[in-house]
Amino acid sequence: MRFNVPVMANILSVLLIMNGILMLLCIPISLSYNEGDLAGISLASAITLGTGFMMWFSTRKIKDKELKKRDGYLIVTLGWFLMSLFGSLPYILSGAIPNFTNAFFETISGYSTTGASILTDIESVHKGILFWRSLTQWIGGMGIIVLAVAVLPILGIGGMQLFVAEAPGISPDKLQPRIKETAKRLWLIYIGLTGIETVLLWVGGMTFYDAINHALTTMATGGFSTKNASIAYYTSPFIQYVIIVFMFLAGTNFTMTYFIFKGYFKKVFSNEEFKYYVLFCSFNALLVAFTIYFVSDSSFEKSFRDGLFQVVSVVTTTGYVSADYTSWTPFLTVLFFVLMFFGASAGSTAGGVKIVRHVILFKNSVLELKRQIHPSAVIPVRFNKKAITRDITFNILAFIMIYISVFGVGSVAIAATGVDFMTAIGSVATCLGNIGPGLGTVGPVDNFAHLPVVAKWILSFLMLVGRLELFTVLMLFTPYFWRKHS
Amino acid sequence: MRFNVPVMANILSVLLIMNGILMLLCIPISLSYNEGDLAGISLASAITLGTGFMMWFSTRKIKDKELKKRDGYLIVTLGWFLMSLFGSLPYILSGAIPNFTNAFFETISGYSTTGASILTDIESVHKGILFWRSLTQWIGGMGIIVLAVAVLPILGIGGMQLFVAEAPGISPDKLQPRIKETAKRLWLIYIGLTGIETVLLWVGGMTFYDAINHALTTMATGGFSTKNASIAYYTSPFIQYVIIVFMFLAGTNFTMTYFIFKGYFKKVFSNEEFKYYVLFCSFNALLVAFTIYFVSDSSFEKSFRDGLFQVVSVVTTTGYVSADYTSWTPFLTVLFFVLMFFGASAGSTAGGVKIVRHVILFKNSVLELKRQIHPSAVIPVRFNKKAITRDITFNILAFIMIYISVFGVGSVAIAATGVDFMTAIGSVATCLGNIGPGLGTVGPVDNFAHLPVVAKWILSFLMLVGRLELFTVLMLFTPYFWRKHS
Repeated sequence: MRFNVPVMANILSVLLIMNGILMLLCIPISLSYNEGDLAGISLASAITLGTGFMMWFSTRKIKDKELKKRDGYLIVTLGWFLMSLFGSLPYILSGAIPNFTNAFFETISGYSTTGASILTDIESVHKGILFWRSLTQWIGGMGIIVLAVAVLPILGIGGMQLFVAEAPGISPDKLQPRIKETAKRLWLIYIGLTGIETVLLWVGGMTFYDAINHALTTMATGGFSTKNASIAYYTSPFIQYVIIVFMFLAGTNFTMTYFIFKGYFKKVFSNEEFKYYVLFCSFNALLVAFTIYFVSDSSFEKSFRDGLFQVVSVVTTTGYVSADYTSWTPFLTVLFFVLMFFGASAGSTAGGVKIVRHVILFKNSVLELKRQIHPSAVIPVRFNKKAITRDITFNILAFIMIYISVFGVGSVAIAATGVDFMTAIGSVATCLGNIGPGLGTVGPVDNFAHLPVVAKWILSFLMLVGRLELFTVLMLFTPYFWRKHS
Repeated sequence: MRFNVPVMANILSVLLIMNGILMLLCIPISLSYNEGDLAGISLASAITLGTGFMMWFSTRKIKDKELKKRDGYLIVTLGWFLMSLFGSLPYILSGAIPNFTNAFFETISGYSTTGASILTDIESVHKGILFWRSLTQWIGGMGIIVLAVAVLPILGIGGMQLFVAEAPGISPDKLQPRIKETAKRLWLIYIGLTGIETVLLWVGGMTFYDAINHALTTMATGGFSTKNASIAYYTSPFIQYVIIVFMFLAGTNFTMTYFIFKGYFKKVFSNEEFKYYVLFCSFNALLVAFTIYFVSDSSFEKSFRDGLFQVVSVVTTTGYVSADYTSWTPFLTVLFFVLMFFGASAGSTAGGVKIVRHVILFKNSVLELKRQIHPSAVIPVRFNKKAITRDITFNILAFIMIYISVFGVGSVAIAATGVDFMTAIGSVATCLGNIGPGLGTVGPVDNFAHLPVVAKWILSFLMLVGRLELFTVLMLFTPYFWRKHS
């Protein structure tokens, strides 16, 4: 087996060039606020563009452009890794995060749309750098859409092919079959929603700078905020409700959002994942709201808003905080810990396991009991009124099992670095699920700065593993991947 | 669909009569120690025997003795439940545990071989009652052997049929194919090993009474001790090593133990589950031993013994404690929490998920990555050099997923009763896995007395669910089970 290294290098060079150009977007902001981060950002952009162009020029004339599946896996993982490596340059060169481990952690937390941060005082960081920080999440979100729509179905990962383009079921319903068209359309929705949210947040009372930053990180279900207190800084119910709505939209399958815009409501409401997504969020939001109402002295509206905000934030893997979910009662701490393992819809920018997998898992578990009584009957799982093939069900079960195994091994590894129990399991659950805040000393009002260096690298790895749907990254650690002639 | 109620009642009546007779075994002990528990035990036995005989007499003449699979499920669950209900009478009537919830919790913790206790001062309880407490675990262990060898294979649960009687692979290797013979042989091993351990512990310095009690609860992987400090009371390394060896044997597939007695060592060492069981225990024991050695000032031998003891105790789901695993370092707390999800061998008295399922899960996960690269190839999991059918692999994946789901839902439910985070997840993990000690306020040096009443009932239910391999009990909560003509 041979990898087509020149083509891979060519594709990676394009990513680097994009990365460098996006850094340029921060320059106007640096200039207008003039806080001293201009040189660092410019230099970072120059290095990234320089490296990118060098790679591109040396690979642009290759003839054999054929890529195999294996090349695809490697490109996706390497691409995300390289973006994060070069993406940490603005932090390092501007002096905002001089430590390499911290800068890399913050960048991969951005590109993976996680939102876990090592910054202890966000508000003291220069505006140009903070904009770059928000931008990494937004780019990561875009990357995920491409990945979900175009790349993973080709690689055949996680049975996702079934739930993205074909979500509504039958072929005439298919969103534009041509991948480029589809990706373009979804990007348009992504960009459009970001714009609308920016305006709404601005109207609601945020500065334009904060509005655009929060819009960028909401739509990516990222959760980086420009405020130390995250969304709790904004006491305006309007702002909080706007963010709830857009977090929810960002966690909705973008195909569904497209249908909503087109007015195809019937297709949306007949979609099983969307139905369970709505039900799951509503049920948990109400459960949390009532609990807050009874254990605290918040008004009902405040309890409802806090419950809904935190549930939508964790389920969509955004990770914004408008109230500390670990402060109310142990019941809610456990509940939010469990919610970290859910994730919103496939085909959205959300990370984690995703609702569709849980629904199929649940249906299959109940059916497995039925199969015990009728051992000779073939009883398939049905989703969106179609029987799911056993291969896909099998794949989904394997995905969830690997997810939990990685969580277990990761927790032990993090604890081995000397971190306490709750912080260990909380940090792994939140990073693997691309959420942001965890439990213990990395809870909603804390940050990841104090963790040991080794723990930060493990968590960086887990953010990447979670973001790329496990298989893409873990694949590279199997002998099958590197074996010749196989 | 109709249940064959008379035959079911007949079988349950036999269980009750057995239960009553076993209570009589405590009478000589009551008499010789003369601490005042004689009346309670006698009355409990009389009530149990009376009810049993009444049920038996009214059902003994039925003609239609045919039992369907469904009847089987119901009998197993009802049987364990009824045994626990009547088994709590000695506690209640002797006044040792006057509260019904507590008495039922202690009894089901016995019959399920869990070992979680609500007793705050074990040593003050009368000897006759403590013997009954140990006996419930031993009976539970016997019940599990029957269940594993004779009942579950017929009900087709958990793919266990493959790993119990057929463990070594090919038909001539089969342990006595006739179920009755097999059960008898395994019971003989069970009784024999209990006898040998009693003698060894007695020789090691325990009183004869303590020796027999500990032998009864070791072989059942139960973990009830007659001492408040559990095995930490006995500082003799000899006693601790004896217990380690017998916990390990109790967690070994009894078919393998039979082969060892017969001298068929090759069959034992070629058995994959046994191999991984040995490797898994050794690896974790060494890991824990080295960690203890570095973080505490224990000698190497003491660190090794403490590591080995605690690992074997948790992996075999016994739950004896010779040192507090939550007291060394958070790393070990997390590690032991993860170990709670393993369980020893199928076909032993151990509870939990079991090594065989983990091995197949692990192999399947790695193969799923291979399947991504070769989507058209059919790549089965191989175990003991045989390809495992997809049905069984599927069943095992479903089992583990249901296990984890029950753990998640259970944790949220326990936390909802007002229990803190670590206690909630620790108590659910330990009860579902039939281990005994958990984390937080139900850790190795604590007990379950202080938990809310509702939490005790939930945990009692989980002990039963875990002990009966999930499906048996959960089945009863599906509509399929109660539906007519299906």
